[in-house]
Amino acid sequence: MAAKSLASCIFCKIIKGEIPSFKLLETELSYSFLDIGPLSKGHALVIPKHHTEKMHELPDEYLADVMPIAKKIALAQGAENYNILQNNGRLAHQIVDHVHFHVIPKPNAEEGLGVGWPSQTLSKEEMQAIFDDLKGKL
Amino acid sequence: MAAKSLASCIFCKIIKGEIPSFKLLETELSYSFLDIGPLSKGHALVIPKHHTEKMHELPDEYLADVMPIAKKIALAQGAENYNILQNNGRLAHQIVDHVHFHVIPKPNAEEGLGVGWPSQTLSKEEMQAIFDDLKGKL
Repeated sequence: MAAKSLASCIFCKIIKGEIPSFKLLETELSYSFLDIGPLSKGHALVIPKHHTEKMHELPDEYLADVMPIAKKIALAQGAENYNILQNNGRLAHQIVDHVHFHVIPKPNAEEGLGVGWPSQTLSKEEMQAIFDDLKGKL
Repeated sequence: MAAKSLASCIFCKIIKGEIPSFKLLETELSYSFLDIGPLSKGHALVIPKHHTEKMHELPDEYLADVMPIAKKIALAQGAENYNILQNNGRLAHQIVDHVHFHVIPKPNAEEGLGVGWPSQTLSKEEMQAIFDDLKGKL
């Protein structure tokens, strides 16, 4: 599949070198660089060289390429605690509409990703109903 | 590489069927199921069938297998907004010490992942120093 690019997309411009970046690693399918508004030192992004807004729109070969690169970056960061995060949609905190995976060191409580965890307690029946619905769509 | 399992690990037990789960998809390298303490309806986990505590310890073939499965689950969930999250270490909100990727629908402000974003403003020189350090380790 030919890579798709969007002229108005800031991340497509970074991939093409039209906007400078602190480039870390690059493969045939992916590009990675430092986030310029980092949550902690070393906060990096891995992006596919194929423009889609959301993760579920990406061809599998681009998806498969991302995490081994995130691993190399995490090893270089050397952080004991870190988060991998990929946001889809404004409500889920996506700012740039080109799929990007964050690799964010968590050195202390103040720096790095803040995680809110409003977990729900569902009955066995409610879980079963959700499961049946999802399984029917897989 | 032979898959590694840990007798005391709850996720290894789920993979082996020793603990029941709402299984969604399974491949040779990965297993996915509903989170029983969901942040939103359909909140699912994708886990490698190879026990390591943190993402950077996983062999690449396991890492490459994860996101295409997360994509299938996201498509089945059908959420317009959602987050992919993988936590490493207690400080980064990891609870179970077997690598797991969350696929979390974000239907509204109250449900789903809470994201805190304490971004920093660094000088060009500070960014360059972080970059030089990371590049030297890649």
